[in-house]
Amino acid sequence: MLGKQTFLLQGDLLGRFAKTGHGEIEPGSKYAAGTQTALDHRSPDLVRLLVSQGRVHMENMQYYDAMKCFEAAVYLDPDHEEASVGLKRAHCKIVPRWHFAMLNDDERNHAYEMALNRAVTSESIVFDIGSGSGLLALIAARAGARQVFSCEINPTVAELAQDTVRLNGYDDRVKIINERSTKLRLGVDLPVKQNLLVTETVDCGLLGEGIVGSIAHAREHLLTEDARIIPCAATVSAVLVESRRLQRLNFVEKSCGFDVSPFNHYATPEYFPVRLGGFEYVELSEPFDVLHFDFAGAPITPSQSIVKAPIKRDGVCHAIIFWFTLYLDDDISVSNQPGSTTHWTQAMEAFRKGIAVRAGEPINIQAEHDCSTISFKIIGPREITGINAAS
Amino acid sequence: MLGKQTFLLQGDLLGRFAKTGHGEIEPGSKYAAGTQTALDHRSPDLVRLLVSQGRVHMENMQYYDAMKCFEAAVYLDPDHEEASVGLKRAHCKIVPRWHFAMLNDDERNHAYEMALNRAVTSESIVFDIGSGSGLLALIAARAGARQVFSCEINPTVAELAQDTVRLNGYDDRVKIINERSTKLRLGVDLPVKQNLLVTETVDCGLLGEGIVGSIAHAREHLLTEDARIIPCAATVSAVLVESRRLQRLNFVEKSCGFDVSPFNHYATPEYFPVRLGGFEYVELSEPFDVLHFDFAGAPITPSQSIVKAPIKRDGVCHAIIFWFTLYLDDDISVSNQPGSTTHWTQAMEAFRKGIAVRAGEPINIQAEHDCSTISFKIIGPREITGINAAS
Repeated sequence: MLGKQTFLLQGDLLGRFAKTGHGEIEPGSKYAAGTQTALDHRSPDLVRLLVSQGRVHMENMQYYDAMKCFEAAVYLDPDHEEASVGLKRAHCKIVPRWHFAMLNDDERNHAYEMALNRAVTSESIVFDIGSGSGLLALIAARAGARQVFSCEINPTVAELAQDTVRLNGYDDRVKIINERSTKLRLGVDLPVKQNLLVTETVDCGLLGEGIVGSIAHAREHLLTEDARIIPCAATVSAVLVESRRLQRLNFVEKSCGFDVSPFNHYATPEYFPVRLGGFEYVELSEPFDVLHFDFAGAPITPSQSIVKAPIKRDGVCHAIIFWFTLYLDDDISVSNQPGSTTHWTQAMEAFRKGIAVRAGEPINIQAEHDCSTISFKIIGPREITGINAAS
Repeated sequence: MLGKQTFLLQGDLLGRFAKTGHGEIEPGSKYAAGTQTALDHRSPDLVRLLVSQGRVHMENMQYYDAMKCFEAAVYLDPDHEEASVGLKRAHCKIVPRWHFAMLNDDERNHAYEMALNRAVTSESIVFDIGSGSGLLALIAARAGARQVFSCEINPTVAELAQDTVRLNGYDDRVKIINERSTKLRLGVDLPVKQNLLVTETVDCGLLGEGIVGSIAHAREHLLTEDARIIPCAATVSAVLVESRRLQRLNFVEKSCGFDVSPFNHYATPEYFPVRLGGFEYVELSEPFDVLHFDFAGAPITPSQSIVKAPIKRDGVCHAIIFWFTLYLDDDISVSNQPGSTTHWTQAMEAFRKGIAVRAGEPINIQAEHDCSTISFKIIGPREITGINAAS
């Protein structure tokens, strides 16, 4: 899979080394040409240089550059242990491991498969935002779509998706485009307007992968007026919890008697993913709905809403946990609610100060979204000072 | 905390924009000088430019560069919403959230506190590798150490540690050095040889943060012959488990009937962290010890050992889970064993092919380390084909 590309990269790298006149490599056209013959007698030096450069790129979180260095090193010396390991490590940074859990998420997969099987006809021209492995594009093609265009911003993942589409024999009808969906132009990247949009670009907090903006852009520029949109809607629900352990994932006050609160300057200001099953917590409220999104309706704009959280138990609220129910059509939905076995975790926003709540006394929560993140405020609560206060 | 530094950064950035002659900013000394007065009438343009540049850096995972852009933007316009949010997001990438869980890990903290209280005397000159918040350095200083030198490679964290040391009134005796420990030179960075080394640079798989190399370097160059080393030793233990769910965090074969196995090219080749409490699994073996490290003994070199895993239950082995017991001295230890409440998760190496095991028939496991990672091989097993095979 990597042969030709690697060789080109290697030539490119050699060109760069030649241009910069790096001490260990003689500048000049002989190496810049990047031919295997010209390289042989210098390979060990070059491999060492590439590996050491790859290591520096890894430390600086420049993973694509690291990958290119290690790929070139492995090409020159397939037995080089550190180069192979380095390449694997760069790959893992570029293709994050959650892809596996997602691809193995049968509940998610089958929900999308059912929805696509119902929606796709032989007239369907499908636009898939976020190829990943190409799975949704493949499902649409197998369901009989005339043509599927699928876009993926990660170049490594896009190449992988194209390989997977080919392996499964659908490369005549599925085209993977390595570009952000909002950069695509009708008549240039897509020949005609598409009449079915499918996307699963949602994180545990629903909006974090930009689904609102990408659907809005597609509806304005790339889809027919009456295009089907999968998912058509989503509801976000939440529950208030007491859990010092969860709160302390994001805030700190004292450790061994020392004031280490300066660290809170670097606390995450928004929600972050937690796998609730791994932590002890007590639900203080019933679950309650906080926001609704209609992806096929009027344009979605930033909004706020105030909802009453139905408190069922006395306690100190340390965090709000939230999740989505994604409606693929009128009947089919998929959710990452607590206890669900989907690959998504839940989303949590922790509060630095605990908030005392009493059973039967609902409290007001302001839920807010700016189209790319959801955040919460508790309105007029009684705060408990600091996380080291007794709960 | 950020005032002066921010202003300097801003000058630096302006200098860079001036040098590159970016379209929206006139090149020249007026802006490159970076004085507030000279800037006022151009601020909105410049803020917009900085924010958009910060956004690009974030997308390219260049978090320090992103932070500098957003810091400068916030300095110029403290009310700029996207700049503030961008700065917070960059901070969260630069100071990962696990710092909070670690600082709140009472079990870890108290174990180190007890060990340091016992080891430190008024003669102690302490070398602390990996400052983090400065907590271990502070504990050593409070225990009466004459002087503490503490090094931290992350510049943002190092600054935070220095602030925390000052806040707690120990800046006369604790010095934070923003450098990798293996780069420090005696007589330059450290005035004299240190007689007590303390470090907690261990990840869930023990070796991943480089503890073997950094202790070895310190012993060779920076410590007295008889220096105390905390931790003095560690044991790694493991258990074999059956869990398709855990295996499928790192491997995939088929999804909805499609062959998506090309993704396995990007599977993590080594262990990775899992919070076991969040997953269903069955233990197939008793826990067994696999490796031992004596940090105060003979130099540690890469090694292999073959151990027998005592199988207690019929099943298909999908993964090996492992953890450490870190001995701080002869009596005090801390561990991330399954069920522990320390902040560390457990480490897991998943096997792409399940391996059939039978109760009472021990199997041979080869445990290997190269001083920076631990890996496992099962020797001569019966493999089950693929992860979609029935378990």
